[in-house]
Amino acid sequence: MASLRPLLPIAALLLLLLFLISFHSDPPPILSRTPSHPLDPLTFDEIAAIRSILVSYPPFAAPNQFPAIHSISLDEPPKLIVLRWRPGDPLPPRRATVTAYSPPGHTHLISIDLPSGRVLHHSNPSGFPFLTIDDMRRAIATALNDPSFLQSLNARGLSSSDVNCAPLSPGWFGSEEDHCRLVKVQCFAAAPNFYLRPIEGLTAIVDVDAALVIRISDSGPGIPISAGEDTDYRYSTQRNKPRSFSNPINPVSLEQVGGPSYFIENSHVIKWASWEFHLKPDARAGSVVSRARLRDPESGEWRSVMYQGFASELFVPYMDPSEGWYFKTYLDSGEYGFGVSSMPLVRLNDCPRNAHYMDAVFAATDGSPFVRPDLICIFERYDGDVAWRHAQPHIREARPKITLVVRTAASVGNYDYIVDWEFQTDGIIKVKVSLSGMLLVKGTTYQNLSQVPEGEDLHGTLITDNIIGVVHDHFLSFYMDMDIDGPDNSFAKFHMIKQETSPGESPRKSYMKVIGSIAKTEKDAQIWVTPYNKSEQWAGGRFVYQGHGDDTLATWSDRDRGIENKDIVLWYTLGFHHIPCQEDYPIMPTVSSSFELKPVNFFRRNPILRAPPYTEVDLPVCSVMASL
Amino acid sequence: MASLRPLLPIAALLLLLLFLISFHSDPPPILSRTPSHPLDPLTFDEIAAIRSILVSYPPFAAPNQFPAIHSISLDEPPKLIVLRWRPGDPLPPRRATVTAYSPPGHTHLISIDLPSGRVLHHSNPSGFPFLTIDDMRRAIATALNDPSFLQSLNARGLSSSDVNCAPLSPGWFGSEEDHCRLVKVQCFAAAPNFYLRPIEGLTAIVDVDAALVIRISDSGPGIPISAGEDTDYRYSTQRNKPRSFSNPINPVSLEQVGGPSYFIENSHVIKWASWEFHLKPDARAGSVVSRARLRDPESGEWRSVMYQGFASELFVPYMDPSEGWYFKTYLDSGEYGFGVSSMPLVRLNDCPRNAHYMDAVFAATDGSPFVRPDLICIFERYDGDVAWRHAQPHIREARPKITLVVRTAASVGNYDYIVDWEFQTDGIIKVKVSLSGMLLVKGTTYQNLSQVPEGEDLHGTLITDNIIGVVHDHFLSFYMDMDIDGPDNSFAKFHMIKQETSPGESPRKSYMKVIGSIAKTEKDAQIWVTPYNKSEQWAGGRFVYQGHGDDTLATWSDRDRGIENKDIVLWYTLGFHHIPCQEDYPIMPTVSSSFELKPVNFFRRNPILRAPPYTEVDLPVCSVMASL
Repeated sequence: MASLRPLLPIAALLLLLLFLISFHSDPPPILSRTPSHPLDPLTFDEIAAIRSILVSYPPFAAPNQFPAIHSISLDEPPKLIVLRWRPGDPLPPRRATVTAYSPPGHTHLISIDLPSGRVLHHSNPSGFPFLTIDDMRRAIATALNDPSFLQSLNARGLSSSDVNCAPLSPGWFGSEEDHCRLVKVQCFAAAPNFYLRPIEGLTAIVDVDAALVIRISDSGPGIPISAGEDTDYRYSTQRNKPRSFSNPINPVSLEQVGGPSYFIENSHVIKWASWEFHLKPDARAGSVVSRARLRDPESGEWRSVMYQGFASELFVPYMDPSEGWYFKTYLDSGEYGFGVSSMPLVRLNDCPRNAHYMDAVFAATDGSPFVRPDLICIFERYDGDVAWRHAQPHIREARPKITLVVRTAASVGNYDYIVDWEFQTDGIIKVKVSLSGMLLVKGTTYQNLSQVPEGEDLHGTLITDNIIGVVHDHFLSFYMDMDIDGPDNSFAKFHMIKQETSPGESPRKSYMKVIGSIAKTEKDAQIWVTPYNKSEQWAGGRFVYQGHGDDTLATWSDRDRGIENKDIVLWYTLGFHHIPCQEDYPIMPTVSSSFELKPVNFFRRNPILRAPPYTEVDLPVCSVMASL
Repeated sequence: MASLRPLLPIAALLLLLLFLISFHSDPPPILSRTPSHPLDPLTFDEIAAIRSILVSYPPFAAPNQFPAIHSISLDEPPKLIVLRWRPGDPLPPRRATVTAYSPPGHTHLISIDLPSGRVLHHSNPSGFPFLTIDDMRRAIATALNDPSFLQSLNARGLSSSDVNCAPLSPGWFGSEEDHCRLVKVQCFAAAPNFYLRPIEGLTAIVDVDAALVIRISDSGPGIPISAGEDTDYRYSTQRNKPRSFSNPINPVSLEQVGGPSYFIENSHVIKWASWEFHLKPDARAGSVVSRARLRDPESGEWRSVMYQGFASELFVPYMDPSEGWYFKTYLDSGEYGFGVSSMPLVRLNDCPRNAHYMDAVFAATDGSPFVRPDLICIFERYDGDVAWRHAQPHIREARPKITLVVRTAASVGNYDYIVDWEFQTDGIIKVKVSLSGMLLVKGTTYQNLSQVPEGEDLHGTLITDNIIGVVHDHFLSFYMDMDIDGPDNSFAKFHMIKQETSPGESPRKSYMKVIGSIAKTEKDAQIWVTPYNKSEQWAGGRFVYQGHGDDTLATWSDRDRGIENKDIVLWYTLGFHHIPCQEDYPIMPTVSSSFELKPVNFFRRNPILRAPPYTEVDLPVCSVMASL
């Protein structure tokens, strides 16, 4: 115990440091905020006020008539009003969009004017909003109270207290069950990492509004449940295991002793290097970047780049046509909500020490506001890479590359999606998506490949005894309302063709020639481009739950509207084919993919020619904490 | 001046710190090293000994018979001998390969046994080795002494002292000039950044052995020479310019107060985390990674991954068929040498502060050894990214991603190529290539696009007045002799097809199915795969200068040899199409591309499940240097 004593002063110092760090990073108390920008998200008080308006709204005021609230979010002012607004101007009237649901089958889309406390519009569109936590709990409870479902569990030696269940969206396959709001419940044997212990083949198809099991499907009583040995990835468990045969790594830290170089004005306007943009959490999209602008390095003029950008939809189809799997064609944003599925980021590990965190305020099912802390982090990154360089015998010049990263991490059930918006000093915006979490796995009787009959398709990889990692894809569609030097833009496509030279023209037989053209209409744009339309934001549709695909990017764009020199929206879909492998078990090493929005002939010349190099005096003096 | 006084003690401290840092980073004196691994590069003393052997070698001993030395490098022992060698065993006999040239037309390939001092083999292959510095100087001097060339310069108001010239490889186009060793000399008006002031259309075709100008081509007397205004990218110049309209960025530093986690044994064997590999500079390839192995996290067994990997060739064709440009189809590694074109890395800027540097020993044209310091850097990277994570309401776990980067940066004339080999704890090897430096530009009479006649193809982009950035490609072919758990491997290809379901099989109409096959012969391998052959290392041929393409990956592979369960080599070509833009002027913001070698069903499970998270006590306490 003596060895603990020298630690005491350090512990005290540590507490002080933690306090200082926490003091430094904490935003002003979120409950007292007032909006200061037309795009600022609804505040705690505003959501509370909206709830009061809804409670006294006549259609909802009778007993048991209050609907389930699925989301309450800012109804953004018209784009032209936002573009004309200047700091100091009064805010345009604050309005909210409420998505609510009254069983059975009544989806509400309500527009509320906060200053007047009035409901401006109320419609009942077709389709269902994303599931609430209450929907999920009710679906699972319904399954676990069903005698037939319990019998199937009992047949496997399990009771309802031995399982963790998942509320799965059913997709839409045109069956007779589609007339009501369905959740398919599948369960896992309880464990810290229950996802790897599927109770294979057992599905309860639940009418979530009626709290009734419509049908039980059980095709897998003979399939053993994996023991899930050593799948608990928590450090509290793993620290007690013998070390692996790897030399330990001394921590490497991003240190910025001068403090951050960004300024955050009124909680949501970020200014860094030549960039300025508005940033907010969103219950559906996760994070939304708006009004991204930068100052021209030569003229000092503010130049618009993007009016708004966010992850619009995420499509995750699994590639197994069997009864328990065919419907797994998730549209995670629209069916579960990317923002509400995001847990607080893990400080020091999800984001580096120099990160600032932004909280979210969302609405609970009863319409009351709640705070989800640390939903977004913002940090400056240096990874040892080079912004530009050149060396020759008497000149050696290089510049460090420092960028600003905005990060969210959604955990939609088993899977984790880290979405980064990275702003570079050279004008590039890079969007990177990193995947981790657990595979959605399928139980099997097979323990090794020699047991699999010739020609049988496992639809995946046998990643350990009795467990198949099922092949699947992830497609993230990003909405990017580009306003490059103003709202009206055109979409130019460039590609290269082989050009043969004429006889005698050149000793060279051929070369690559650049061919460019401007897309006139939507169908010309191979990468999707649509004219701006406030109602066209969600690539899979506004209400995608059991949706029929009639309100999607594909259907809008089918109108083939003109897109030349118009206010246009660019859609980019970033995809992953995931053929699982043993290394993905029990938790997946991160896999990333990215795309870049790059300025091309936007600046007159390299905008970072004058960036200074690092010298030794610029860098901090550091020591180990234990040496203090 | 008073303000300087407080800086004095800091300056003294700074000097001390610099001294300490420099002391810490310096390798043992390179001159005294002895090789300790069969793959260690030739030492200073060994190269000096080889020169002595060559000087007394009868064919070279007569006056004026000593050839120009183009390279002296280790002739690596046979692979099986290297694989059997264990630390402590005596080294296999040290042998060297000398590439030399006696004008006119005699290329020498000489194998020397160091212990015996004997020349083992001496052949005179066809083709020319990469240019020496002396070749380049002679070619330029020849052009600048040519009266007709001088007359063309004079006609533009320039003399030979007003220009910087480039020694350009002529490619091979089957013309009558190809019987001798050619260099095409083109010049630029002198300036710190002369590359942006081309003297367009003027080319001297030089017989470099005869030191004779064969022909002058001048198609551009009417084309003005750009003033190259504000193109000097040196900080010493730019620091005096007015600041751009960007908020300054506080430095972010990678700090690792516990010191590096890697061990470097005998200068060339790197051990980090579960990895071990041999690393050395190479005059042609830049850097060579050999015997990459890692310890299995469960068994502790050392498992082989790659016997050897390096950048084999770089092809940079420009896409302009005109007289002054058609021949610009550079094979930079084989024509100039990627290693000898690498200048010392710029400390703190090309690599972060926590980097270790490795020097190279190369041979000068007279065969004597010289040291090129800081040719490779090695550092541990943390950029705020996540190695794996998962969050759910009562579990939030994330792990920081730390990697080991090995970097070189070649400056082949105007262009800079940063090549990174990044080793990850999850078993991935990522190869990343980043491009910077100056564009190779073409002078033009046009100052803006409105002057360009309809239908005229500029073969590039008018990036500023009178300057076209010519369209070009960069293709880097990497040689990777994979030895996954041993030399004999097979190459399996996987792709996905759309599989329609049978009627009644599933509510799902189709799904993606994975189809895999093992390539039996070279032609089955769409990505190039060849059986290991010590003489097949350079994708464009061993002697590519004016080469005819008869010793290339394409010709070897045309034999369609068997590659199943054989010792095979994987070739990956990473490419960039570069359509220049204004932002590339005067120096190009870095552009990157990468590929990964990823373990798939190699480990039994995630090898980094037990990695610890960061906690506050793991991270350093830092302060600004000025606050000391």
